[in-house]
Amino acid sequence: MNGKPFCAASIVIFGGTGDLAGRKLIPALCRLNDAGLLPHDFHVFVTGRTDMTTAAFLDSFVNREADHFKKDTRFASGFERLRPRIRYLRANPGLKNEAQDFRRRLMTEEPMAAPARLFYLAVPPASMDSFIDLVKAFSDARIDHNCPERILVEKPFGSDLATARELNARLLGAFSEEQILRIDHYLGKEAVQNILYMRFANLFFEPVWNHRFISNVQISFSEEIGIGGRAGYFDQAGILRDVVQNHLLQVLCMVAMEPPLSHRPGDLHLEKNKVLKALRKYKPEEVAQETVRAQYLHGMLKGELAKGYLEEEGVRASSKTETYAACRVFIDNWRWGGVPFYLRAGKRLDRNITEIVVNFKPVPHSIFPTLTGKIESNRLYIRIQPNEGINLLLNTKPPGMSMQVSNVGLKFSYDTEFGDYRPDAYERLLLDSLQGDSALFLSNSEIEESWKFIDPIIEGWQQFAQPMFTYPAGTHGPREACELLERHGHRWRPSEGQCCP
Amino acid sequence: MNGKPFCAASIVIFGGTGDLAGRKLIPALCRLNDAGLLPHDFHVFVTGRTDMTTAAFLDSFVNREADHFKKDTRFASGFERLRPRIRYLRANPGLKNEAQDFRRRLMTEEPMAAPARLFYLAVPPASMDSFIDLVKAFSDARIDHNCPERILVEKPFGSDLATARELNARLLGAFSEEQILRIDHYLGKEAVQNILYMRFANLFFEPVWNHRFISNVQISFSEEIGIGGRAGYFDQAGILRDVVQNHLLQVLCMVAMEPPLSHRPGDLHLEKNKVLKALRKYKPEEVAQETVRAQYLHGMLKGELAKGYLEEEGVRASSKTETYAACRVFIDNWRWGGVPFYLRAGKRLDRNITEIVVNFKPVPHSIFPTLTGKIESNRLYIRIQPNEGINLLLNTKPPGMSMQVSNVGLKFSYDTEFGDYRPDAYERLLLDSLQGDSALFLSNSEIEESWKFIDPIIEGWQQFAQPMFTYPAGTHGPREACELLERHGHRWRPSEGQCCP
Repeated sequence: MNGKPFCAASIVIFGGTGDLAGRKLIPALCRLNDAGLLPHDFHVFVTGRTDMTTAAFLDSFVNREADHFKKDTRFASGFERLRPRIRYLRANPGLKNEAQDFRRRLMTEEPMAAPARLFYLAVPPASMDSFIDLVKAFSDARIDHNCPERILVEKPFGSDLATARELNARLLGAFSEEQILRIDHYLGKEAVQNILYMRFANLFFEPVWNHRFISNVQISFSEEIGIGGRAGYFDQAGILRDVVQNHLLQVLCMVAMEPPLSHRPGDLHLEKNKVLKALRKYKPEEVAQETVRAQYLHGMLKGELAKGYLEEEGVRASSKTETYAACRVFIDNWRWGGVPFYLRAGKRLDRNITEIVVNFKPVPHSIFPTLTGKIESNRLYIRIQPNEGINLLLNTKPPGMSMQVSNVGLKFSYDTEFGDYRPDAYERLLLDSLQGDSALFLSNSEIEESWKFIDPIIEGWQQFAQPMFTYPAGTHGPREACELLERHGHRWRPSEGQCCP
Repeated sequence: MNGKPFCAASIVIFGGTGDLAGRKLIPALCRLNDAGLLPHDFHVFVTGRTDMTTAAFLDSFVNREADHFKKDTRFASGFERLRPRIRYLRANPGLKNEAQDFRRRLMTEEPMAAPARLFYLAVPPASMDSFIDLVKAFSDARIDHNCPERILVEKPFGSDLATARELNARLLGAFSEEQILRIDHYLGKEAVQNILYMRFANLFFEPVWNHRFISNVQISFSEEIGIGGRAGYFDQAGILRDVVQNHLLQVLCMVAMEPPLSHRPGDLHLEKNKVLKALRKYKPEEVAQETVRAQYLHGMLKGELAKGYLEEEGVRASSKTETYAACRVFIDNWRWGGVPFYLRAGKRLDRNITEIVVNFKPVPHSIFPTLTGKIESNRLYIRIQPNEGINLLLNTKPPGMSMQVSNVGLKFSYDTEFGDYRPDAYERLLLDSLQGDSALFLSNSEIEESWKFIDPIIEGWQQFAQPMFTYPAGTHGPREACELLERHGHRWRPSEGQCCP
């Protein structure tokens, strides 16, 4: 999609009483509103399954978000300004004729006769279908075809290739591909967007951005938190589906893609698709060699005892769901032939960090035969969060009489350069969805290609009963994830010091 | 030369009562002494034309350097430790039999029977020959041929190709090339040494270090000071001979050379020679098109009125000596074909700075068609002095909703990384000369090749009466130096703001 900006809009949030709406969507709309970036006429329709007046919803929202308001006064004051635009509506697909009823009630309250509509589906997978049907009623019944509608869908996009195809089929049965926005909020992060700027608004990366100069690439996602209240979902999914299939593969695409014709949606989707197609799909019997899965045990995290995964509430005692996954993947194309990409994601690790590390090859020849010490290979760190920035390790001569070489960083930090305010990913993506720019959303084929990579791994784990390794909460992860690299002469970023417990 | 370190040494400084010895050589020897880097047994013989006792010399030295000691207490205390090693000797080549006499007196006072000797010729060009003869008497008369001798020669190395050849011939008549160390203190500067580390201890510069990716290279030398007490020398020489022929061409070599086989002297000299040989030599009639010469007028510098060059004491009223020179040069080889190198050097400018700027070409294609603003071409700043460091300009996306690109620096600063202490260039070079490492010294052929480039420019200026442009003291230099670049669509580093007055 590369549509037109909305002038007047109904922003309809299904699942509007949920966690995501309070934590991310409403705050993002507040900031867009304060920045004057929302359409001239708009209402935000928050929906839930129960009957409630707008006033009652607003009261309960303010109540629930009291702590949030205290911490973020900007949100608090922004909410006061957004408040008059918010309407609560019941939307309960379980009720008879709810689609028609909801449509009627929405149209009654809309800011003008034929606004554009953005339907935001922030609902659990189990009820996704019924909400799609509910929204579809608009298209079926529509009178004014100048009133454009877009539908924004939250992950998960299925739990494997088959279910993703079903979801895509259902969406495409109700809407055209141009109307559908599949969100992966990682693409809205400033540091992820910036990968394209870094690579293609600068001359000096692209010539070395290939197998001739790069030894391996690492993409790491590490979280301190466990599964919180999400045991029901997470214990079915596991981290490979929850994080790797979407966020990590999308980041991989940004790092690995060929220069797109332009930053426009079609051109970007095309190149990301090519990367995912080139991603080597393992046969189930190869999986044990190329991947590691693990669960956290109890351990000390930031001075507090954290439960093991199997002791968490809502987790099956015999669960074989991984909370940590690492894999070695290859992109079988001309640029990346033979360069391993190492991906890892884990919960209950020792810190919160998402980072790309590009490890360059050694210099082909040392002109410094009498050097004290070894010339380290160059490394480029791209920090996605927190402390976003870039650090390119440079070998340099420390001042003095000895013939030494020392690693210093050529550094760029967002905080230092631009101050510490960064818009949230949802701001960017909500704005883009209203403006009709789907560049930072996912195409259906990207999702299906991603599952073609993920499915055989899960199949291999189950079919060949791959061991479920363990790691104590608060550590870097399982020893076996280090061995996965060490077998090939590589290691995870060395600044972690001792790599594994 | 790649000789052996001296165990016992006589360090003999001719011109030892002069400015360079007090400002640079003695302080450097103090620091090397304090660092335990000097030979186990050594004496520093300071020579002058008059008879004086060592005690009288030391008294006068302490007197003269009183201010220096106050500012640099490390020097003051280091001098106390070096003091017992210092001897004063008369060396006046104008006296009959002085060579034999000097030799006898030196040998009487030397620390042991057959020390190695380093003769440092810090004498004016006019008396260079007679001092060479004086030193030659040692070689002619020597008894113990295990006692190695090296001769370290200060610039200027002639004033044109013919006189440089004469000097080289005289040196080579007295010593072997392996014994001769021609010093250019710029090569001892940490940031100049680091150019080789930057280029060849890192993988990512070399692939873009050529005509395919680099648009032009600028090397700028800017000084606030005028000619001080050096009018007699400077008005004969001019800045092209004083700075460009040596410092700037040597820096050019470090930037432009092919990867040498090693950092060893022969390999480095070979590659620097190749650059100088490839340097396009202008015909005198081409010079006006490719160079600018200028003199400073009076002007305000740091709030004080500075005299014009022609008003300086000791300068001929009709002097045609340039205090500023700029030129566009080409290195006609496979790597640099078509890439202009812009050199400029000037006195009485608005600031003290020596800097290399590598201007990269634009990206071949913008993938950001809706971008606000233009993608600036990348630039790499290598600061030689002051505030040594590297700054690689990176285009990046500033956080926020608009589609912008902004220039930030990937920065490395010596001060931030290593603290503010940097050894002086003379420390490095004195140590190397004692250790027999001539890598950072000049070969005779480099000097002769440099003059082959310089001579036709001076000839062209004189033969075709090229205008002597002017610039007020305290400015960036003459307008015509900007036009030299603008004719070819380039400009000097933009951070200077308004380029010219």
